[in-house]
Amino acid sequence: MKEVMAVIRINKVNETKRALAGAGFPSLTATGRVLGRGKGTVDFRIMQGAAEGYEEAIAKLSDAPQLVPKRLLTMIVHDDKVDLAVKTLIKVNQTGNSGDGKIFVLPVNDSYRVRTGERGGVTLD
Amino acid sequence: MKEVMAVIRINKVNETKRALAGAGFPSLTATGRVLGRGKGTVDFRIMQGAAEGYEEAIAKLSDAPQLVPKRLLTMIVHDDKVDLAVKTLIKVNQTGNSGDGKIFVLPVNDSYRVRTGERGGVTLD
Amino acid sequence: MKEVMAVIRINKVNETKRALAGAGFPSLTATGRVLGRGKGTVDFRIMQGAAEGYEEAIAKLSDAPQLVPKRLLTMIVHDDKVDLAVKTLIKVNQTGNSGDGKIFVLPVNDSYRVRTGERGGVTLD
Repeated sequence: MKEVMAVIRINKVNETKRALAGAGFPSLTATGRVLGRGKGTVDFRIMQGAAEGYEEAIAKLSDAPQLVPKRLLTMIVHDDKVDLAVKTLIKVNQTGNSGDGKIFVLPVNDSYRVRTGERGGVTLD
Repeated sequence: MKEVMAVIRINKVNETKRALAGAGFPSLTATGRVLGRGKGTVDFRIMQGAAEGYEEAIAKLSDAPQLVPKRLLTMIVHDDKVDLAVKTLIKVNQTGNSGDGKIFVLPVNDSYRVRTGERGGVTLD
Repeated sequence: MKEVMAVIRINKVNETKRALAGAGFPSLTATGRVLGRGKGTVDFRIMQGAAEGYEEAIAKLSDAPQLVPKRLLTMIVHDDKVDLAVKTLIKVNQTGNSGDGKIFVLPVNDSYRVRTGERGGVTLD
C-alpha cells in the first residue's frame, strides 16, 4: 500500500477527480489549500518592503515568484496501482507550464477498515 | 514511531478525542474537512449532467454514492502503542454501517522536540 | 527524499518561512490549522461539566492543558538536506517554552514532476 500525495493546481481538481474515478480510484481526500512555491527564490525583503508601502519594492514584486495556492490530494492505493494513479495524475495536470505540480509516493505499513475491523489491503479506493 | 492516520465521520470526532485521551493519547492534529467516498463508482457524467440542469441526471443523482465530508485525524505514536490507538479508534467509530472510516499506519523515521532540540522518541502524545 | 512535518506556533509561521527560504527551502505546503495538545492529561469530565454549566468544572478548567491551535508545515526535501531543514526549524521556533512544537521526518519512496513527467529527485524546494 502506498500514499500518493499530489500537489496540483486548484482549477484542475475537478478534472483530476473525474479522471481518477474513471481509472478506478473513486475515493480520495483533499485537504484545504496549500501554498506552493515553484523554483526560484522569494525575496522576503521585497515582500516586506511592499507590505510597508515602499514603491520600489512594490514595483519589483511582480518579478518575484508568487505564492501560488494549490490543492493537496491524498490517495491510498495498492502497490500495483501506484503507476496508474501517477500516470493519470500526470496526464490530467500536465500543461507543460511551470506550476503543473508534483507527486510523491510514501510507504504505508498497515491499514484497517473501521466497519469490520479487518486489517490489511484497505485503501481509500 | 508511527503516524496513525484516521479518516472518520465528523460527528464522531469529539467522542474519538475523548476516547483517545482516555487511552493515553491526549494529543493529535485534525486537518480540515476531507471528502471521502466509499466503494462504488461515482458517475461523473451524471453529476455533470445534473450540474448542467438535465432532469434525468438530477433524478439519478440520488442513486449515486455521495461525496461524504469526513475528518482526518493524525497522531504520532510509539510503535508499541499503535495497536492501542487502532483499537481505540475502531471501538469508537465502528457502527457497522458503510462509511465508518479507515485507518492507516505510516512509518516515521525520526522526531525532534523543538523546545529542547532532543531527537528521537518524540510523539504528539 | 524525506517528508519533514513540523507542528509549530501560528505566530511563528512567517518567520519560519523566511528562515527556510533563506536556507534554500523556498517551497512548502501549509495545511489549515491543527489542534495540538502538549503533555498532560485533558480531563474531559471537567470540559463536559463546564460545557454543561457546572461552576466547579468551570473553575477547574483554567488548570487543564488547553487545546492550542498550531500550524502544520510540510516540506519534501532531499535526504542530505533533512538536517539543515530540522536545524532551521528548531532555530526559529525554539523559545524554550512548552508548546514550541515538534518535527517529524517520514520516508518518501518516489517523486514525480508533473510538467515533465520526470521521476525521482523531485522535491517541493
